[in-house]
Amino acid sequence: MKLASLRSGRDGKLVVVSRDLNRAVSAAQISPTLQSALDDWTSTEPALQALYAQLNAGECSEAFAFDPAACAAPLPRAYHWADGSAYVTHVELVRKARGAELPESFWTDPLVYMGASDAFIGPHDDIDVESEAWGIDFEAEVVVITDDVPAGSSPELARDHIRLIGLVNDVSLRNLIPAELGKQFGFYQSKPWTSFTPVLATPDELGDAWDGARLHLPLRASLNGKLIGAPDAGQDMTFDFPTLIAHCAKSRSLMAGTVIGSGTVSNVGSEQGSCCLAEVRCLEIIATGAATTPFMSFGDRVEIDMLDANGTTIFGKIDQVVTHYQPPEK
Amino acid sequence: MKLASLRSGRDGKLVVVSRDLNRAVSAAQISPTLQSALDDWTSTEPALQALYAQLNAGECSEAFAFDPAACAAPLPRAYHWADGSAYVTHVELVRKARGAELPESFWTDPLVYMGASDAFIGPHDDIDVESEAWGIDFEAEVVVITDDVPAGSSPELARDHIRLIGLVNDVSLRNLIPAELGKQFGFYQSKPWTSFTPVLATPDELGDAWDGARLHLPLRASLNGKLIGAPDAGQDMTFDFPTLIAHCAKSRSLMAGTVIGSGTVSNVGSEQGSCCLAEVRCLEIIATGAATTPFMSFGDRVEIDMLDANGTTIFGKIDQVVTHYQPPEK
Repeated sequence: MKLASLRSGRDGKLVVVSRDLNRAVSAAQISPTLQSALDDWTSTEPALQALYAQLNAGECSEAFAFDPAACAAPLPRAYHWADGSAYVTHVELVRKARGAELPESFWTDPLVYMGASDAFIGPHDDIDVESEAWGIDFEAEVVVITDDVPAGSSPELARDHIRLIGLVNDVSLRNLIPAELGKQFGFYQSKPWTSFTPVLATPDELGDAWDGARLHLPLRASLNGKLIGAPDAGQDMTFDFPTLIAHCAKSRSLMAGTVIGSGTVSNVGSEQGSCCLAEVRCLEIIATGAATTPFMSFGDRVEIDMLDANGTTIFGKIDQVVTHYQPPEK
Repeated sequence: MKLASLRSGRDGKLVVVSRDLNRAVSAAQISPTLQSALDDWTSTEPALQALYAQLNAGECSEAFAFDPAACAAPLPRAYHWADGSAYVTHVELVRKARGAELPESFWTDPLVYMGASDAFIGPHDDIDVESEAWGIDFEAEVVVITDDVPAGSSPELARDHIRLIGLVNDVSLRNLIPAELGKQFGFYQSKPWTSFTPVLATPDELGDAWDGARLHLPLRASLNGKLIGAPDAGQDMTFDFPTLIAHCAKSRSLMAGTVIGSGTVSNVGSEQGSCCLAEVRCLEIIATGAATTPFMSFGDRVEIDMLDANGTTIFGKIDQVVTHYQPPEK
């Protein structure tokens, strides 16, 4: 099943989207919003699946053309956004570029930060940033959405709480990161916006590509029409999603609608390219001593997508332009 | 005006509470939940204020006795919880106890971490923790709730976005903190639960004690009936609330219902005691070389309160017991 939220008020309007992303139908009679559907997933999920089957069979008279540009984030605001850094090879590369050792514990203890769950934006929304000097970058990631997860759940139990899967662009302001990490309190100003693919999909939709813990397909990230990378999201993911969820639920429960992110997808050796410019720059520094690829400028366009074995987009595309934000007069 | 959420479903049921906290009346006809009231504050606030005036005048026939034990957190789940560490004197003390210098920038650049906004619990809810070895502590703080804050707002503009004020207990697992801070990604497992006072109050409710930026009254924290501290929340707050909000909104907007915390209230010299056990222990270490006050045990009771000039509670009391949580079978 594929679900999206059309722009409407603060929480969007839930629609069921056909497998080929061509048609959609309102899910209002089942649940007005994706959050309310997740709040009561045991009863809403079968009804949504039935509507999805009708839609794919061409049996929904109220179906309409699906427009990704009309989408908000599937959860336009959520209660919890925990982003991992599960591809430790990426972290190792970043450290290597600045001549720092990777602590051995990074291979066994997941890195996770709490992100801004009230700052989720749609797949075609502008990325508003006040200053290019902040070092504007994208990060292409895989995310999962959980239902309620009891505190202290093991990875084995956590696996059964994954309800939806999608992609995000975790916008990062690279030049604000060193000072924030130096304070040890985590990212804050340096992680302003997170945008989502038009649709999220249930695990059954992904066939063999989803093994219950990792998504085994290339994640494609492009800048101004040029492919920057397409590393396989199923490779080199040191901590799989059940492990990340169990880590997040160690000392407290997670509420339905919790978004858990993989962190920038990255493969050892980066032969298929990178999912963020920071990694491209690190590779340049390691190879030549200096980074030549700049961060994003106003007007730059980032696209993030994942194709199935037939080359068809699964979640629809994130397609955003960086724009110059003017803050209010003091 | 004073507002509370009675336990009901995931988001509680909004009630208006009388100034003396004795009576309450349903606000369902204006707004079913506090979040929905904040989403549309310009129109809901006058209606809620009118109901509050009626309630205080004894003119609400549907009013009932207010029971703080029936309260959820005012926002049982919120979209954003940003907790500052605004009393830098506290941070300095903690560093001093472990023989570390305080970076000079800590006096000019606010420390803020993103907290678990889906893990808000009620004033009388148990503090469920799996292990005493995690070092269970309370932190008494002042919080404000904002409406929508545009990105890049100055402190002057941010001041006008403060809609509600209350107190929280930011439960901290001290023995999990060093490893998490060492990873630089901020607190996660070490900050499991945040509980709130029964009511939040609008700024006008606080008279001269609220100057638009700081709350000038002692914040009282007790453990098992013994006062641990009552430092003045208006003193030694290096970064006031408008400054914290502007810091949080530097690179993106904040959504209505954002909770901004002061961090543990602390006064220079700690003559009025402390608002967390970690500070008590740091003072012991500085004085004698070793901490003798233990962290909390199962069965321990923490109370947090703030009294007005007449000795009457303003927000009602946080009154919680630490309980031994049993995780699900693996």
